[in-house]
Amino acid sequence: MPRTDGRTPDQLRKIDYVLDVAPHAAGSVLIAFGNTRVICTACINEEVPRWMKVQNVKGGWLTAEYSMLPYSTLERKDRESSRGRPDGRSTEIQRLIGRSLRAVVDLEKLGARTLCVDCDVLQADGGTRTAAITGACIAVAVAFNRLLEKGKITQQPLKKKIAAVSVGIVKGETLLDLCYTEDAAADVDSNIVLTEHGEFVEIQGSGEEATFTEAQLHSMLEYGRKGIKELIAIQDAAITSAMKPAQSKDLQNLASFFGKR
Amino acid sequence: MPRTDGRTPDQLRKIDYVLDVAPHAAGSVLIAFGNTRVICTACINEEVPRWMKVQNVKGGWLTAEYSMLPYSTLERKDRESSRGRPDGRSTEIQRLIGRSLRAVVDLEKLGARTLCVDCDVLQADGGTRTAAITGACIAVAVAFNRLLEKGKITQQPLKKKIAAVSVGIVKGETLLDLCYTEDAAADVDSNIVLTEHGEFVEIQGSGEEATFTEAQLHSMLEYGRKGIKELIAIQDAAITSAMKPAQSKDLQNLASFFGKR
Amino acid sequence: MPRTDGRTPDQLRKIDYVLDVAPHAAGSVLIAFGNTRVICTACINEEVPRWMKVQNVKGGWLTAEYSMLPYSTLERKDRESSRGRPDGRSTEIQRLIGRSLRAVVDLEKLGARTLCVDCDVLQADGGTRTAAITGACIAVAVAFNRLLEKGKITQQPLKKKIAAVSVGIVKGETLLDLCYTEDAAADVDSNIVLTEHGEFVEIQGSGEEATFTEAQLHSMLEYGRKGIKELIAIQDAAITSAMKPAQSKDLQNLASFFGKR
Amino acid sequence: MPRTDGRTPDQLRKIDYVLDVAPHAAGSVLIAFGNTRVICTACINEEVPRWMKVQNVKGGWLTAEYSMLPYSTLERKDRESSRGRPDGRSTEIQRLIGRSLRAVVDLEKLGARTLCVDCDVLQADGGTRTAAITGACIAVAVAFNRLLEKGKITQQPLKKKIAAVSVGIVKGETLLDLCYTEDAAADVDSNIVLTEHGEFVEIQGSGEEATFTEAQLHSMLEYGRKGIKELIAIQDAAITSAMKPAQSKDLQNLASFFGKR
Amino acid sequence: MPRTDGRTPDQLRKIDYVLDVAPHAAGSVLIAFGNTRVICTACINEEVPRWMKVQNVKGGWLTAEYSMLPYSTLERKDRESSRGRPDGRSTEIQRLIGRSLRAVVDLEKLGARTLCVDCDVLQADGGTRTAAITGACIAVAVAFNRLLEKGKITQQPLKKKIAAVSVGIVKGETLLDLCYTEDAAADVDSNIVLTEHGEFVEIQGSGEEATFTEAQLHSMLEYGRKGIKELIAIQDAAITSAMKPAQSKDLQNLASFFGKR
Amino acid sequence: MPRTDGRTPDQLRKIDYVLDVAPHAAGSVLIAFGNTRVICTACINEEVPRWMKVQNVKGGWLTAEYSMLPYSTLERKDRESSRGRPDGRSTEIQRLIGRSLRAVVDLEKLGARTLCVDCDVLQADGGTRTAAITGACIAVAVAFNRLLEKGKITQQPLKKKIAAVSVGIVKGETLLDLCYTEDAAADVDSNIVLTEHGEFVEIQGSGEEATFTEAQLHSMLEYGRKGIKELIAIQDAAITSAMKPAQSKDLQNLASFFGKR
Repeated sequence: MPRTDGRTPDQLRKIDYVLDVAPHAAGSVLIAFGNTRVICTACINEEVPRWMKVQNVKGGWLTAEYSMLPYSTLERKDRESSRGRPDGRSTEIQRLIGRSLRAVVDLEKLGARTLCVDCDVLQADGGTRTAAITGACIAVAVAFNRLLEKGKITQQPLKKKIAAVSVGIVKGETLLDLCYTEDAAADVDSNIVLTEHGEFVEIQGSGEEATFTEAQLHSMLEYGRKGIKELIAIQDAAITSAMKPAQSKDLQNLASFFGKR
Repeated sequence: MPRTDGRTPDQLRKIDYVLDVAPHAAGSVLIAFGNTRVICTACINEEVPRWMKVQNVKGGWLTAEYSMLPYSTLERKDRESSRGRPDGRSTEIQRLIGRSLRAVVDLEKLGARTLCVDCDVLQADGGTRTAAITGACIAVAVAFNRLLEKGKITQQPLKKKIAAVSVGIVKGETLLDLCYTEDAAADVDSNIVLTEHGEFVEIQGSGEEATFTEAQLHSMLEYGRKGIKELIAIQDAAITSAMKPAQSKDLQNLASFFGKR
Repeated sequence: MPRTDGRTPDQLRKIDYVLDVAPHAAGSVLIAFGNTRVICTACINEEVPRWMKVQNVKGGWLTAEYSMLPYSTLERKDRESSRGRPDGRSTEIQRLIGRSLRAVVDLEKLGARTLCVDCDVLQADGGTRTAAITGACIAVAVAFNRLLEKGKITQQPLKKKIAAVSVGIVKGETLLDLCYTEDAAADVDSNIVLTEHGEFVEIQGSGEEATFTEAQLHSMLEYGRKGIKELIAIQDAAITSAMKPAQSKDLQNLASFFGKR
Repeated sequence: MPRTDGRTPDQLRKIDYVLDVAPHAAGSVLIAFGNTRVICTACINEEVPRWMKVQNVKGGWLTAEYSMLPYSTLERKDRESSRGRPDGRSTEIQRLIGRSLRAVVDLEKLGARTLCVDCDVLQADGGTRTAAITGACIAVAVAFNRLLEKGKITQQPLKKKIAAVSVGIVKGETLLDLCYTEDAAADVDSNIVLTEHGEFVEIQGSGEEATFTEAQLHSMLEYGRKGIKELIAIQDAAITSAMKPAQSKDLQNLASFFGKR
Repeated sequence: MPRTDGRTPDQLRKIDYVLDVAPHAAGSVLIAFGNTRVICTACINEEVPRWMKVQNVKGGWLTAEYSMLPYSTLERKDRESSRGRPDGRSTEIQRLIGRSLRAVVDLEKLGARTLCVDCDVLQADGGTRTAAITGACIAVAVAFNRLLEKGKITQQPLKKKIAAVSVGIVKGETLLDLCYTEDAAADVDSNIVLTEHGEFVEIQGSGEEATFTEAQLHSMLEYGRKGIKELIAIQDAAITSAMKPAQSKDLQNLASFFGKR
Repeated sequence: MPRTDGRTPDQLRKIDYVLDVAPHAAGSVLIAFGNTRVICTACINEEVPRWMKVQNVKGGWLTAEYSMLPYSTLERKDRESSRGRPDGRSTEIQRLIGRSLRAVVDLEKLGARTLCVDCDVLQADGGTRTAAITGACIAVAVAFNRLLEKGKITQQPLKKKIAAVSVGIVKGETLLDLCYTEDAAADVDSNIVLTEHGEFVEIQGSGEEATFTEAQLHSMLEYGRKGIKELIAIQDAAITSAMKPAQSKDLQNLASFFGKR
């Protein structure tokens, strides 16, 4: 059965990015997985959390926040601040983002600083959490490179790059990088976070009012592995281009963000 | 390397339970995985959430809440109500519990009701979320059996039983059902939820400031599968005994809960 | 008019208890006044509140929290954390518990520590606040005895034991230790907290959409005095048994908690 | 031992009042017990609480709120809204005010309305809760009289007037109507609410880090009874004068409120 | 077209005041612009905000809070604390009050203190924010005079007095000091804050679902200037009389506050 | 004295925009006033607020929210949802945005809908509220044009376009469109909102710990009028281009947003 957007089952959506969309952050990128667009930023705070001081923990910390901008969904979504409490789904996702990045960051090499990662969804069309992790890794890598460049740190804290992708089972078929309509129809939904060397950082698979077999788990892992390999290559290009003075190639990417409707 | 409590790597802790600890709930159980003790209850609310009415969704709903009682941890933990906002970790866990149970409950057969599952940790020693899911399934099954007995529902909504267990990798070794000290030392921590037929409901694996290989994932799945088989047998016994008038065997269990220090 | 459960007007319900239900607490007890069951714990926090440091107050502090578990009532009760604000009734009760215990604890002898008392209602059938105070006093006494045993404190901070009971006037008749249906029918409801020597710690009497006479107040005080004398004797037994290595007698009590439905 | 302000042990402070300080309320009074000044108002809301509609309860409702204005205390007190949660002490007091008034109001005669009582402390010098109850009864009586006058209700809902006073034991001596410095030095503190016929509505006695005897309770009740008799007479005068067109006598009272410093 | 209360277009309502209504504050006044009555107080806190300490800012701070008492409006208004979050309109107004006063207070001369200004509306009939600013300036001036008198500060921190008034355009006509019914009918509503020398401190003009011309702005400024001149004269009298021991003149004012209905 | 960025005193910063950055919104634009960049969106909600239904008000409603993204400032700013309460400054600004737009929108012509305007600051460098209003008017106009195009409404609800700009007085000199460093140094800061025909919608001028004269007010109004004329021309171009299928010119603008650092 062909996918609505004509992709093969193991094909990623078009991945685009624009670097430095939030120049006050140490690193920032607007990343797109098809119509899913997430602003990912990494800011340096020259402080560590209170619990580290109290417990006298050395090194730095990395924290992550995730939010859907109110206009990111088809029906406008109320802001969390207007409801006075964080959304359960957002809480779960931001914990995943923070945990994944901490798995590959050497917090000692960061020094007594907090790296604050923010992921704000500008447009939601499925896979916002995996786009967020993939984009956040670019923002973090750029931030670290700039800290190194400025001599604020002397060793690279990012041990390996990570990327993430969703894989699901829709009507019995394994599909990579689900868009919203595929996600809504999926019996099984998994999110896979791997390093650039193919090691697991995080795997989450859940039956959506359904269950799945170990064989299905394996087919999802295989597709995920393929997709993440491609994402890592895109991250490499982005991180390299961020450190060059002129970003002429990005202008091409920009067109693909906003020039169609 | 032997485990601190003398278990083999693929051995569960001692599993105990006391039924009907909260008689106002439709089903309730105090379950213990070693020193981890969780009160799991299932209450019937003869209402459905507002969003179901607005969207005109048929059938019922199942919701779950998870909380650590302040005295469950070695250092007393502040109540969520005294901080005015839910804890991120609790939010993540209660979403996992609800999602897992909804995967095996036929909400149409429940009728226009909400089944509210509550899991309150009385003593925390690692694996509270997997004990919670395993105990919650007992409470839910008992609640459904009693609804059937009273004729409030005519068909069993529980399609299959589920149980959950943690598996981790500590100093390179795969270990089943981690206690707190093992969990704190683990490089990889996974939580596996399977049905009584061995199908996956949920799998969550995460490197704790580390990564893991596909081979390690497989060894964790194998151990988890073994542990869950044993847990399902214990659930069967519990659910059967709950429907008998006299619960003389439970008194033996009670002794093991509170009679030692 | 006979009481629904066959008691005489000045008779307490059956009082049961299980010690050390929350082993991470310094002292803990699950106490039952009939079908009312409350988990009472006392935890040591090696800190004093900020206001004591700011005002340079010597000695320690004692604080109390009270909560009804969601499944303690016939209709499930929403958690306070899900409403984002504490319940007025709970606030009133936890202030009463804290005030009553502070009246008999020598905070100087406690040292620069906070004793945190938690009372969580597992099953509510009237008189939860008086069961909470009576159980909390056991937990506090056990906690202090253990601190003395370990040499952390050198003098007993508990000056006298206290116990509490409700007394009401139902259809003109004074009744001791009201269960829920009696409480709902009462014209006057009072809660009495006395020391082991019969001194008043706290008295609260209120007409429930009604008023009462001084003669009625006296009959309530007389019944309360009788009930509290009996409760003090039970506390003595509990505290003594908590300090013995084997708690074989408790197993008898356990049966009465959970073995019937 | 003479009192700091020269009163005899069983003497009230000077009681003053100004009527109609909040003309948008149905009834309002600024009442003073010495330097304790409380704005007490009664507003009519032509609605009943949601729970009454859901449970189909007939008649009306009475609710009370109590707050200390930030400038009422010697050290400015933060507003509750700036802390985002109500103060425990305020919660306890407003529950007492509401309960006391509901004991003497026939809610059926009120019709399907809510009477909202607000008590805001303008200056605090001990006994704010008893001044609040005493003033609130005036505001409520005036509000009811005006509803009767306008024909909105046909029967007087106020069954009896109530008044309240504090009595304490300071250095072994029973004292009526404690000012702040006496209250701070008191071993025992009680608040007594009686009807105009001397029936009990509410009694709250508590040892402040101390205990008390039944004899001391009796002496407190006796003093309280005397004080309340005098307060009822003042209430009578206030309620009568509120219904007269010209309030020339009030101008005398006003002078005593603000003309000295 | 004549105004409902017979005023000429450029005429203020009757301005009344009672000094020292909150004796625990350093300065306080109950000010009335017609039926709009606001309690304005200034309290000294011998602390500066945390951000001043962190940023090592010298001198003191001035902060303002504004609130409508629940009985100040025709329909009772819920308290902000019962809704758990401040009201948007109150937030806007209290920022205006604080900003206006800080423009004329030399915070260095205040020393390392915070002056907390509170404005609580007792009765609302239009123009509460301008009455609040005008009254707050009296309270602040009195507070500073008393600090000087006591030698706590050595130089007057109040550089100039300020007063505020509303001006609006109703059916094409410019009107000074709008009452509630005029305000509700206004096409344009402006609030003007000037110093005693006629300098601008703040101007806010907004079309209420309408727009306005520069000529209309000028006519509003002209009327505002006239009104503020008169208000400054009243402030002068109030501040002077506050420092005199006997306040016999105030008794006259008191009559006009509460003696009519 | 020349401005840091070489502008003349009455010169706007470079104004850029990218249309349709949030395609799920009915209208959206990313607008830049120099380095100040704000995402402005207009979403249609086919509901009206509860108060309109209760009060039976005809037509629609327009509401606005304003927020600074955490990475928009030089030092990362905590999210409002993480503090649990809205920021006072944000509250004030979003009320200004909503009020300004409602002044020029015919809510009857909108039908029984709510137009939700969101303004999220991506980068803050002074003048975020005026950029927000100017961009929001573009988003609203585009949203209305598309509703008309789809036949959902039959008459244009936008009566006139509005734009906003800041004008300040820095070291005695009047400056248009202040950047952050100019704003921080300003003695007087004003925000002016005018229609395309030069009518006033809103004017806010405030001395920053200073005062100003009527002559200074006039010079600010004159500069504001000039700036807003230019902004209206840019709005016209943006709104026209939004309705064309190809947006080739926008790609030029995009380059200026993100292509430099």
